[in-house]
Amino acid sequence: MTQGHSTRSVADHAALVDRLIRTALSRRGPDTVAVEDAHGRVAHTDLRALIDVPSFRNSQMDGYAVDAAAVAEVPVELDVTGVVAAGDDGGDAHVPGTARKIMTGAPVPRGADAVVPVEDTEAVGGRVRIGRSRRSGEYVREQGSDVRVGDVVVPAGTRLEARHVGAIVAVGHASVAVRPRLRVAVVATGAELVAPGTEPGPGCLYDSNGPTLAAAAIADGAEVTVRTRSTDSAEHFAAVLDDALTRADVVVTSGGVSMGDFEVVRDVLGPRGGTFGHVGMQPGGPQGWTDLDGTPVISFPGNPVSTLVSYLIFARPVLRDLAGLPALRPDDAILVDAVRSIPGKRQFLRGRRTPGGITTSGPGSHLVASLAAADVLVDLPEDTTEVPAGATVRVWPL
Amino acid sequence: MTQGHSTRSVADHAALVDRLIRTALSRRGPDTVAVEDAHGRVAHTDLRALIDVPSFRNSQMDGYAVDAAAVAEVPVELDVTGVVAAGDDGGDAHVPGTARKIMTGAPVPRGADAVVPVEDTEAVGGRVRIGRSRRSGEYVREQGSDVRVGDVVVPAGTRLEARHVGAIVAVGHASVAVRPRLRVAVVATGAELVAPGTEPGPGCLYDSNGPTLAAAAIADGAEVTVRTRSTDSAEHFAAVLDDALTRADVVVTSGGVSMGDFEVVRDVLGPRGGTFGHVGMQPGGPQGWTDLDGTPVISFPGNPVSTLVSYLIFARPVLRDLAGLPALRPDDAILVDAVRSIPGKRQFLRGRRTPGGITTSGPGSHLVASLAAADVLVDLPEDTTEVPAGATVRVWPL
Repeated sequence: MTQGHSTRSVADHAALVDRLIRTALSRRGPDTVAVEDAHGRVAHTDLRALIDVPSFRNSQMDGYAVDAAAVAEVPVELDVTGVVAAGDDGGDAHVPGTARKIMTGAPVPRGADAVVPVEDTEAVGGRVRIGRSRRSGEYVREQGSDVRVGDVVVPAGTRLEARHVGAIVAVGHASVAVRPRLRVAVVATGAELVAPGTEPGPGCLYDSNGPTLAAAAIADGAEVTVRTRSTDSAEHFAAVLDDALTRADVVVTSGGVSMGDFEVVRDVLGPRGGTFGHVGMQPGGPQGWTDLDGTPVISFPGNPVSTLVSYLIFARPVLRDLAGLPALRPDDAILVDAVRSIPGKRQFLRGRRTPGGITTSGPGSHLVASLAAADVLVDLPEDTTEVPAGATVRVWPL
Repeated sequence: MTQGHSTRSVADHAALVDRLIRTALSRRGPDTVAVEDAHGRVAHTDLRALIDVPSFRNSQMDGYAVDAAAVAEVPVELDVTGVVAAGDDGGDAHVPGTARKIMTGAPVPRGADAVVPVEDTEAVGGRVRIGRSRRSGEYVREQGSDVRVGDVVVPAGTRLEARHVGAIVAVGHASVAVRPRLRVAVVATGAELVAPGTEPGPGCLYDSNGPTLAAAAIADGAEVTVRTRSTDSAEHFAAVLDDALTRADVVVTSGGVSMGDFEVVRDVLGPRGGTFGHVGMQPGGPQGWTDLDGTPVISFPGNPVSTLVSYLIFARPVLRDLAGLPALRPDDAILVDAVRSIPGKRQFLRGRRTPGGITTSGPGSHLVASLAAADVLVDLPEDTTEVPAGATVRVWPL
């Protein structure tokens, strides 16, 4: 892909962006986070038990700890020698032929080997009447019966959900090594862009690309460390970029990459080794990339729909994978209306699921409202020129 | 459901918890958040355009603004009267028969009605040679052609994804009214519980329920405003609870609800109007609920698997719905091994998807490791007693 000449395929450009971003993140070591903050992060290593679980022999029920021999024949009445609550130590050793009241989770006294659940008992003064026999081991959780020290509880690469967080706490971790979270800088360019909450002057419009890209990157598991805008001044863009490079693993830009006279991204990054050209897709044809000493700058075109489609096709898959999020898979779906496509370009149409199939909203690059209303991206191959109503097409979830 | 007597169905208890939590949240008004923070929140009202988009007539391409009549016959050479860049005002009115160089997004001069893309032109000194004819309106985006002031861009109830954030910024919003986010207090109880990072004494274990419930509630779109633990002391629990009530819309407790002598949640909340009893399920039978002046306290049993299954069955659906997250749907799946179930109880088994079907890890309430390794919950109806290997069962994603 050279300045405006040859056209690369979508797949080739996606592979390039994937490699650049992975390489950038691979330079960072793991983060260490408290277990309270580990949810949604990805385990850097296998997480092994630091203690046995249970760490002591304990009761699975509220009831009476006994020796099984003493309850072999029932009904039987036993002396109650005390109470063991959760959080107590085990207390004195069990005296065979007696019972000790015990709560769920409390340590089973040494020498006792079964627990009779309270439902099968009746307190009679200082004694207990046991109505049902229990075998040795019943309702007793042995030390290490769930997990032994050193067992892998959560394998490396697992995205930590609530149940994993619970497990790593239970086995003794207070903090955990997790994969670094990709730090993304979002730089929207365009002399016409103004921030939300300001009054746009003549010829100006609100920058929606910056908020869109930032929200998308966060949804895909990245951390957005820089959100900024640049005018079309080369000095301004260079300054914004140099600041972003100090705080991010990857910089994503929008705008300034096509054929106009004031293409600030191309003008500044071209001389710094950037490559700008066309990818065979619509919308989103003009694309660029630059490797600035290991920090990739991925440059999308500036039309709002082109920007978001570029993000979805080139950035989303690698961001989700790095965050341990499942890949989004395409579905087959029926088109309600016939559509046309440009030969030689892979076309992505905004679509909406309806009971009758997918309706599309045309190929324009600027229709913010139709993008908000869409819920799928219809993916038409490069060689497609017409798709009749009722045909099956490939759609990606938005 | 009264103290330990009748048994309620899972569906009845789920409906009760759903109603309590919805009612509690309904007392709060909408939040107003900056558009930068709106991602993942749910629109409180229809979001309408505050401005037209585009807000001014502009060029869809880099090229030359002309009057279509002047390029009706091509090739033709026209005088170039200047340049209009993005962010400029429209400049002087167009003089018919001339051209003005124009950049994508720049205002089209009054009187010009078409843009000839740069690819179809050639600069010749101070003039431009136009090689292709364009009709009136081509490559000109009229003011309001995408959205008109007052149009609904995002309907009430929409969970705001990146594309919605972009749209609401584009139509002029700097902040947005969103549904309040449910504030959840998580209170784990048990004399035996210690915090991660501390050394457990004899008979003690790490509190995994608190971190698990907090992570799950966050994953399901809630805000966790309180994470705390209580011993089995009534004074301590009452103090922890009263603090939690000031900072949360709903309090979720674990432990202290069953048949033992030291059931702090039941002992404290019973006299304050709480209801404690059994729900016909396994694990997770003992359940409680209390309405403290409109703040519900939902009380789950304390065994780690029982706690999480209770959360998944009773809290997750309503939390996800309030956060605008899609409902999780059950699948049908094949069981690898035969399983038994207790008649009269709806049973939830931890299961794991394998190429041959679902493997299960038994009904025990304490197996943290098997829960971490599970990825589905197998849902066996109340009247089931045995399911043969190869049978189809209903499974819920974890």
